[in-house]
Parts: sequence; C-alpha cells; structure tokens
Amino acid sequence: MPGFDGSDVIARLRAAAPLVHNITNYVVANLTANALLAVGASPAMVEAEEEVAEFVRRAAALVVNIGTLTAPRRVAMHRAAAAAAEAGVPWILDPVAAGATGFRLETAQVLAAQRPAVVRGNASEILALAGQTAGSRGVDSVHAAEAARDAARGLARRLGTVVAVTGAVDYVTDGARMMAVANGHALLTRVTGTGCTATALIGAFLGAGLPPMEAALAGLVLLGVAAEHAAAEAAGPASFQVALLDRLALTDDAALAAGARVTPA
Amino acid sequence: MPGFDGSDVIARLRAAAPLVHNITNYVVANLTANALLAVGASPAMVEAEEEVAEFVRRAAALVVNIGTLTAPRRVAMHRAAAAAAEAGVPWILDPVAAGATGFRLETAQVLAAQRPAVVRGNASEILALAGQTAGSRGVDSVHAAEAARDAARGLARRLGTVVAVTGAVDYVTDGARMMAVANGHALLTRVTGTGCTATALIGAFLGAGLPPMEAALAGLVLLGVAAEHAAAEAAGPASFQVALLDRLALTDDAALAAGARVTPA
Amino acid sequence: MPGFDGSDVIARLRAAAPLVHNITNYVVANLTANALLAVGASPAMVEAEEEVAEFVRRAAALVVNIGTLTAPRRVAMHRAAAAAAEAGVPWILDPVAAGATGFRLETAQVLAAQRPAVVRGNASEILALAGQTAGSRGVDSVHAAEAARDAARGLARRLGTVVAVTGAVDYVTDGARMMAVANGHALLTRVTGTGCTATALIGAFLGAGLPPMEAALAGLVLLGVAAEHAAAEAAGPASFQVALLDRLALTDDAALAAGARVTPA
Repeated sequence: MPGFDGSDVIARLRAAAPLVHNITNYVVANLTANALLAVGASPAMVEAEEEVAEFVRRAAALVVNIGTLTAPRRVAMHRAAAAAAEAGVPWILDPVAAGATGFRLETAQVLAAQRPAVVRGNASEILALAGQTAGSRGVDSVHAAEAARDAARGLARRLGTVVAVTGAVDYVTDGARMMAVANGHALLTRVTGTGCTATALIGAFLGAGLPPMEAALAGLVLLGVAAEHAAAEAAGPASFQVALLDRLALTDDAALAAGARVTPA
Repeated sequence: MPGFDGSDVIARLRAAAPLVHNITNYVVANLTANALLAVGASPAMVEAEEEVAEFVRRAAALVVNIGTLTAPRRVAMHRAAAAAAEAGVPWILDPVAAGATGFRLETAQVLAAQRPAVVRGNASEILALAGQTAGSRGVDSVHAAEAARDAARGLARRLGTVVAVTGAVDYVTDGARMMAVANGHALLTRVTGTGCTATALIGAFLGAGLPPMEAALAGLVLLGVAAEHAAAEAAGPASFQVALLDRLALTDDAALAAGARVTPA
Repeated sequence: MPGFDGSDVIARLRAAAPLVHNITNYVVANLTANALLAVGASPAMVEAEEEVAEFVRRAAALVVNIGTLTAPRRVAMHRAAAAAAEAGVPWILDPVAAGATGFRLETAQVLAAQRPAVVRGNASEILALAGQTAGSRGVDSVHAAEAARDAARGLARRLGTVVAVTGAVDYVTDGARMMAVANGHALLTRVTGTGCTATALIGAFLGAGLPPMEAALAGLVLLGVAAEHAAAEAAGPASFQVALLDRLALTDDAALAAGARVTPA
C-alpha cells in the first residue's frame, strides 16, 4: 500500500507493551486507558507536578491532552514535555478546543513549541494552533478536515513535527508528505473521547518505536478499521463504544492491512 | 397532554445542537458527555477559573454539578455562573449531596442564589438546600421525592427558579405550577450519575431555547422513557447503562409523546 | 470451606447498604462507583480537604486510592484517614504505582502508617511499600503475586493490618494466616481499574461490618467469581467490563459459595 506499511505494526506494539504516560482529561481517561490496554500497551495516568518528570523518564511515550486543563495540570504538562524531550521519550500533543479560550490557545502553543513528535487535533484545533482564528465552538470541530490541510502542513514545517488532522477523512503530514486516511465511521462523532483515543493510540505506536509519521498512520488506521467493524455490531453510540474497544483488542495486522484506506493526498 | 407539549422538543434540540458547558464531577463526566452527544448536543467540560467566564459566553447553556467539589472548582463555578447570568446564558445547578457537609451546603446555597434557570436534585438535596436539615447520607437520597414537594415549591418561589426533585416520581415546579413525571425505572438507581444525566439533559433543552419548566419536563421525560426501553434490554446495571445511552440517541418526538407520563400534581 | 465462610456475606452487604467514602482516581471513579452500586453499597466520591473529615465520620468505610495523586488529594487523604481512625471507620489503602516515583512511595508509606484495616495492591506495589525496591513500571505489576507473599506478611505484621496481594492468584494475610484466592480471569488485566474495583469491594465489605481478613477474602472472591461468569459472555475487554458489573449485581451468596476457590497458602 502506498505510504503505509502496516504489515507488522500491531505485532510490534503488542511485543513492546509500551508504558504510555498520559496527562489527560478526566472525561476520557477511562476510555483511553482501556483503549491502550486493548491494543497491548500499559497506560498510566500521572499528573502531579511533583512526579511527572520522574515518571516520564521510564515511559516509552507521553500523551498530553489539554481537555480539562487547569493551571496545575498545565504546569505538569510543561514539566513532563520538557523531561520527555530531554530523555528522548517521544510525545504527542492533543490541543483539545485550542481555539476556544485564550488560556487554552496559549497553553497549546507553548506545548507545541516543546517538540512533540506528533500533534493531533480536529480541523478547528489545528487551525487555531496555526494562528488562523478558527471560530472554535467547544470541543467539536466546526470545520471539515480538508479546511485545515494547508494549516497542518505549515504547522508541521514550522514545528518540525508530524501533524494529524482528523475528521471524516484524516490527513497526516510531516510538512513534506501528506497522507489521507479514509477509515472510520460517523458513530465516532457520537461518542466522547474518540479523538483523544486516536491520540492515545498514536502515542502507543510511538512507544513501540514507530517513527512519527508511521505511528500516526497506524493509530488512525487501527481506530478507523476497528470503528468500521464495531459500527456493524452497534445499536447506538454506547454499544458502539463497547464494540470499538473489543475490536481494538481483536484487530490484528491482517485485518489492519485488509481494511486500511491510506492514500497520498 | 396536560402541561407537557413534547411534540417537537427533540427535533428542536437536534436542530439547535447546543454547545453545553459543563463544570461537573469526574465520576460522571464521561457518562453525561455521552448522554449529551446522544441527544444531539455538543458537550464541553471546561473548569479552569482562568477560562470559564470566556467559555460560557459562547455556550448555549451551562451545567454546574458540585459532585467532586474542590475549592478551585468552586471558584470556577461561581465565575461561570456569574458570567452566564450576565450574558443571558441559562444554567442549571445540581447540588450533589448538598446536605452532607457544611462546605457543600454553603457552596450550593451561594450558587442557588446566582439565578440558575433550574435546580435539580434528589429529595435530600432539595430539602437541604431549602434549609430543612435532611440527614443526607452521601449522594443517595434518604427521602422519597414526595417529601420534598413543599420544600421545592418554596425554594422555587424564593429563588425565582424552577426546581426539579427526582425520584421514583419526579416533581417539577416553578413555585406556582407543580407537575409530576412518572417515567423512569428502578435500574436508574443502580447506575452512578443518572441524576447528573437528568441535569445535563435539562441543560441541553435549556440550550435549545426551551423555557425552564419545559426544559425540565423534557429532560426528565426523555431520560425516563429511554430508561423504560433500556430496562427491557438489560441483564443488569451496566448493560442497562449502555442501552440507556443507545436509547437516548434513538428516542424521537413520537416515542417521547407516546411514553410520557406527565400530570399536574 | 477452609478459611472462608461466605455463607451470607452478600446478604449482609445488601442489608447494610454501607455508605462508602472514596478518595480515588478519576480514571476508575465511574467504574468503582458502579461496582459499589452493583453490590448494594452507596458510593460517594468526596475529596475536598475542607470536607473529607466531616464526611468520613458518617461513612461506613473509606477507600483511599492514590491513582491520580496530586498534592491537594494527598492532603485530603491524610485528613480523611486520620478522621476515619479517630471515628473508628475502617478504611482500605490502594497504593497505586507506589514504586513508580518518590512522591508516590512517600505518600503510600505515610498513609500505610495511618492504620488502614486493609492494604490491597499488586505485587510490585506491595514490594515497594515493604521497602523492597520493585522496579515498578507504571501501574501494572512486573511481578507475580507469589513474589510478594513474604513482603505482604512482613508488612501486615509491621503495620498491624491485613495485606492483600492480587494477581493470577491473590494472597491475603494478617501477618499470621495466609490465604490464597484462585478466582478470577485473565481479562481482568485488560480492563483498567479492576484492581481498584477489588479495593472498593473490600471497602464495601468492611462497611458492612466484616472483619478485615473476611472483608478482603469476600471482596476478592466476589470479583473473581463475577469475572469468571462475565468472561464466558464477553467478546473482548469492554463487553467483559459490562458483563462484570452486571454479574456483580447478580451474584448471590449461593453463587459465591459455589464458585469460591479459597485455600490456606
């Protein structure tokens, strides 16, 4: 498949069983911890400023998600990101609702400058982070992912990172290459935290040693393929969420390769 | 039906897709976010004192729930409520376990004086808020809803708000009218956060532009009707919760009208 | 059965309907609240330092879980533990990831000295708490429960408490007796918070008046038996979690006695 060699990413993830340190929001913490466990990673949610630097050094990857941001969590995020960068631990930033308030935008911008391996957001969040006022409306995007493609590319170049914009179609860019992931299902928008779950899964693949572009593609394809199977079993959004986690545990590399819809874009 | 015209409330809610700002407790945040998504609202959990005033101004409604109250959350709640009142954003107060401690009671009383459109609690909470020592025992009511009817009416008059007391039968009053909602199922008491979910749904209807009395009735009827259907599909409390969220997404105005059991009381 | 008389523990728990005060982590709070409700207890998550001492005095038991530890939560935990000890309210400590950082280890050690009735952890946590550097790796144990048997016995003697080490086989000791519980299922390791749920259930049995050793055995057997039944119904970890909570509500004393695998060890 052009641009995505998923032949063994899940096997590698399960073999690595990476410890993924999360500083995340309490709305989705249970879901993302269970998603990480489902795919074979070992999640830990540790957020005290007294310990995050010590903890992240033994982690394989760090996930920073500003969903229920508070001033103490912000301190912890900056410390953890700095320690991760110093220790060579790859990390991913999820700038939840970055455009919604000044507090959120400033936090996301400072974090984005601390060298995350990947930034994943919806179109409104990526546009906000790129300095294009996005009229964000809470945590749900008011833009289609396509609208943030150019902003994502520019942001990736400026920050020296991979940027993933998720939506009906996801776009992943390192500033040079641009790939589209057409997997997923509309029910993902009816369950809270599926974007955060995408971020966590990318974090798991970073922890398993995949390069940032490959980790982002693997995480998004895995979530999308699992969602497609789960939707077929669901009566509504909650049974979909249960089936999605089950499917994350059941999806192997063969199912991933068979289902992946990744193209240059 | 006397007192409840539910002919298009769900259609109106879905058309409005209101942004509902929640300052809530972390036990139920995932559930209430998913309930709001299920009915077509756009939930956001934002609690930093640095940003709540800015955020609430762009929201359609605010939900304040004192479940896992802390001093910083209390500051945020007061600021958000003040900003909501100033901006004309309707808001709802859930005085979780108001009678359990002095810290909780004082917080609930100050918030109740900040002009919420609706206050929703169980009988022990409403009795405590009304100044009638309720012998509260944690978060579960030790009183039947009937025991708080008079207190609810008095509180509604004094605060100039709508008060909803939920239990096996729910009572909703604006100080003059008193309506009873006989929908629901005993399994609602075996899942954490179903009271908080009632509060969130009422918040969604406030955000869709319904007047407080109508919003409270719509939220309680919707939750109750969905619960009745979900109970028929459930093997226990957790499968009930999954079915409940699925049913919240599937219930339309026809099902609501067919199932509603609302009477003057 | 030698060492475990489970003939009426569930009936006693349901009759007592104990108010269980939890100061716990936000990753698992929803799950443990629902587990407590499923077995007939009344959970309350209350963590503000301003109110925990007042609240715990009216509770039947206290659960302290250091999962998402922060400095304010640590203050609340110390205050609540002190008030519980003073008021004669039994409490249980879950030293999540105690060996992972100095902040965590010091907190767990100070709490362990505040006379909990029971300490429950995985092998790495119990080894860390016993002062045997455990090479903890996040929240998941890197040791089999057997490796912490001696440490558990020593810790129980030194602290004057019951210590439960959970794993594929669980060990419970008061420093003299040592019992093994062979119930459970591997899927428990694929869902976040099942160890925390074991802790919460033990807390519920403490609240129902069982002595610490009996409460620990009852909690672990109940979780294990429910898990065995749930695993037979599950397609993956998320449907397992749903079935587990349903089974916690459905398991009665007859099913418990039929399924219990408790032996002196």
